[in-house]
Amino acid sequence: MHTPVPRLTTAQTGPLLKLESLLLQRSADIEAWFRTQWLKTAPPFYSSVDLRNAGFKLAPVDTNLFPGGFNNLNPAFEPLCVQALQTAIQRICPKARRILLVPENHTRNRFYLENVATLVDLIGKAGFHVRVGSLLPDLQAPTDLRLEISGRTLRLEPLQRTGDRVHVGDFDPCAVLLNNDLSAGIPEILRGLKQDVIPPLSLGWHARQKSNHFGFYREVAKEFGHLLGIDPWFVDPLFRNCGQINFQRREGQECLEANVALLLEDIAAKYKEYGIQEQPFVIVKSDAGTYGMAVMTARSVDDIRNMNRRTRTHMSSAKEGREVTGAIIQEGVYTFEKLGPDGATAEPVVYMIDQFVVGGFYRLNSQRGNQENLNAPGMRFEPLAFDNCCSHPDPACGPDDRPNRFYAYGVVARLAALAAAREIEAARALAPSAPQAA
Amino acid sequence: MHTPVPRLTTAQTGPLLKLESLLLQRSADIEAWFRTQWLKTAPPFYSSVDLRNAGFKLAPVDTNLFPGGFNNLNPAFEPLCVQALQTAIQRICPKARRILLVPENHTRNRFYLENVATLVDLIGKAGFHVRVGSLLPDLQAPTDLRLEISGRTLRLEPLQRTGDRVHVGDFDPCAVLLNNDLSAGIPEILRGLKQDVIPPLSLGWHARQKSNHFGFYREVAKEFGHLLGIDPWFVDPLFRNCGQINFQRREGQECLEANVALLLEDIAAKYKEYGIQEQPFVIVKSDAGTYGMAVMTARSVDDIRNMNRRTRTHMSSAKEGREVTGAIIQEGVYTFEKLGPDGATAEPVVYMIDQFVVGGFYRLNSQRGNQENLNAPGMRFEPLAFDNCCSHPDPACGPDDRPNRFYAYGVVARLAALAAAREIEAARALAPSAPQAA
Repeated sequence: MHTPVPRLTTAQTGPLLKLESLLLQRSADIEAWFRTQWLKTAPPFYSSVDLRNAGFKLAPVDTNLFPGGFNNLNPAFEPLCVQALQTAIQRICPKARRILLVPENHTRNRFYLENVATLVDLIGKAGFHVRVGSLLPDLQAPTDLRLEISGRTLRLEPLQRTGDRVHVGDFDPCAVLLNNDLSAGIPEILRGLKQDVIPPLSLGWHARQKSNHFGFYREVAKEFGHLLGIDPWFVDPLFRNCGQINFQRREGQECLEANVALLLEDIAAKYKEYGIQEQPFVIVKSDAGTYGMAVMTARSVDDIRNMNRRTRTHMSSAKEGREVTGAIIQEGVYTFEKLGPDGATAEPVVYMIDQFVVGGFYRLNSQRGNQENLNAPGMRFEPLAFDNCCSHPDPACGPDDRPNRFYAYGVVARLAALAAAREIEAARALAPSAPQAA
Repeated sequence: MHTPVPRLTTAQTGPLLKLESLLLQRSADIEAWFRTQWLKTAPPFYSSVDLRNAGFKLAPVDTNLFPGGFNNLNPAFEPLCVQALQTAIQRICPKARRILLVPENHTRNRFYLENVATLVDLIGKAGFHVRVGSLLPDLQAPTDLRLEISGRTLRLEPLQRTGDRVHVGDFDPCAVLLNNDLSAGIPEILRGLKQDVIPPLSLGWHARQKSNHFGFYREVAKEFGHLLGIDPWFVDPLFRNCGQINFQRREGQECLEANVALLLEDIAAKYKEYGIQEQPFVIVKSDAGTYGMAVMTARSVDDIRNMNRRTRTHMSSAKEGREVTGAIIQEGVYTFEKLGPDGATAEPVVYMIDQFVVGGFYRLNSQRGNQENLNAPGMRFEPLAFDNCCSHPDPACGPDDRPNRFYAYGVVARLAALAAAREIEAARALAPSAPQAA
């Protein structure tokens, strides 16, 4: 029994089918290329990539280095996750026996807590002792949370420090695994630790910029396009960025208008080149941070000029009260995958551990159109787990049959993970004295 | 929907339940121990281990370094096999893009051919170009075989050599993967190659001895017993061996009789120590070779003295006509797992790629008792794929629930794989000039 798979609802699927066919034919060369890349640059410990499938283009629009949706993956791929975790930890700190997981401070987000419990479970099954160390300032003692969705119990313990080591109670971990994107900055308790911290602290959203990541991605897409003999644009969303924007005070407005205009022209040129009958649009969002706050769609420069007060207030908001100071203007990529009688829009999200794709899921929303950001506050989020794990193609199927569409997702997601790997390497080079693992 | 799992039909399951509980409680320490072992000694590329579950004892009785039953594994674990293959090949020869698979010369064994086709499929999905190079002397041109069980087509091409490289047609492989146990010796065409040959040629049955392997296993079991604080006997079959036996001429008979007598005494002492109400028995088999030829059961020295002509002829037979010159006398381990209304005897077989357990299956036979070798000629062989992959325990279940029994199988099988790893390392040390990979 297969779960349903969204169907593409655009007639303009020629380029994608061509891409999928090419990925299928060249999968051995693609895999060999990835293997050489992972030898040059260590993959992120874990990552998730939001993709958009426009039919004529398949591209990543966000790459998260602290994925918070492991609970949404198909349980059938649990052994795959366990095996990938074993490989990842063995590569980074082979002597590790005890792992301390440090999650986000979301005690009211029941979905996120399920993710934490799932990670604890997976790490335990990978053969490690694991405990959860919390950064919650008002947590004074170990606290058991009853998770309402799965009925599991998750124990949070206050993170403590002695000298240059963090611990919970008498549990002294070999490695600290962060599932906290550090949007609010690096907590003092995590600075200068002797233990391996995975991923490195410098990758938190307090310092990380999407434009930096997509700059690396542009290079990766170019190399990949060269390997396959295709225009990298088919897998790469065009983007520009502005450094200093204050939406409330309209500071930096000129930069924003100029870049929106230029980007819309670039997209229009590509649509014309490939005979794509769609209206170009761009997404303006914070250059840092995630969770879809501070995002808007623009189809013309006037949309920027005429930004009303409500939108400017919205664009000034950010996770944990962080100010918006940089903006990325990204090519809008249509989402033409639909599911069910109400035609819910579906956005694929691919999960990776180390260099391995371990599954993914669709975010479904029947209230939003094919251009809107699906990760917006208040949306009706429903995950639909993939029933293929995206790690390999099936030559016996057609190019757009489910294993091969998922393989295409797995390839493009790994391009984004490779860009993140280079991003991490560059960040490490800027702080070579930090004893942090990949 | 779960597949049925054999039930244990002996009341004497106390020691095993205790072992399973211990493995469950100590899984993080066990996994940490395995991790350190794999850092010291590279695992075999692939292996399969035949286990016996007596209820009071769980032990490996055969370890195969050229497993020929990948077609029997649960297809649900295909992604796990693909991921493990990627890790294994990347560790041994990271630059490999093209793999040449060299199978056994069984063109009439339809089950074995399905195994070859499955391996080709898995290697392709792992992202490599793969072809099958045959050692069949009378194969002059590429030949497509139609496989009657799966309907797949398997192409065999004559193995060719140019200088110090083997190839098929214009396909020049980076690595040669052997799925041929070289019982008949090392073919000239495979000697002194520049390419990586996996596993090393010295591990073929022309040179390999079971007594050597079980000597390494005895050491591994001792270390493992020390780690857990248990008697290694619970996972280790006692054994002795004789070097020169000619069954037809009754040469070496005294060695055989003496060792059978001593081993039966040793087993009886253990049964008495643990209050096990079963009759000790031993298995006499060739010290080389597989496929269950040349095997007999003895419950007393008289069984050896009174060996009739038919048995002596049987014991003189060997695969590909090889003479029996060495014998291993192994502790007989009861098989108390039964399945179905006819109480078919079930013997678990665990499959591994690199250090990872990727699944397994039961060999079922309703015509044989719980002592007999299930891999005998003419038996009714039916595989029953495991529906858990054996790689990790589930703390939420009881110690003898299916995931945890399978985890116990995965642990003991990996002990045997570790013994094989040390065996390979020792063989390599004897031929340090050979440019062969693990």
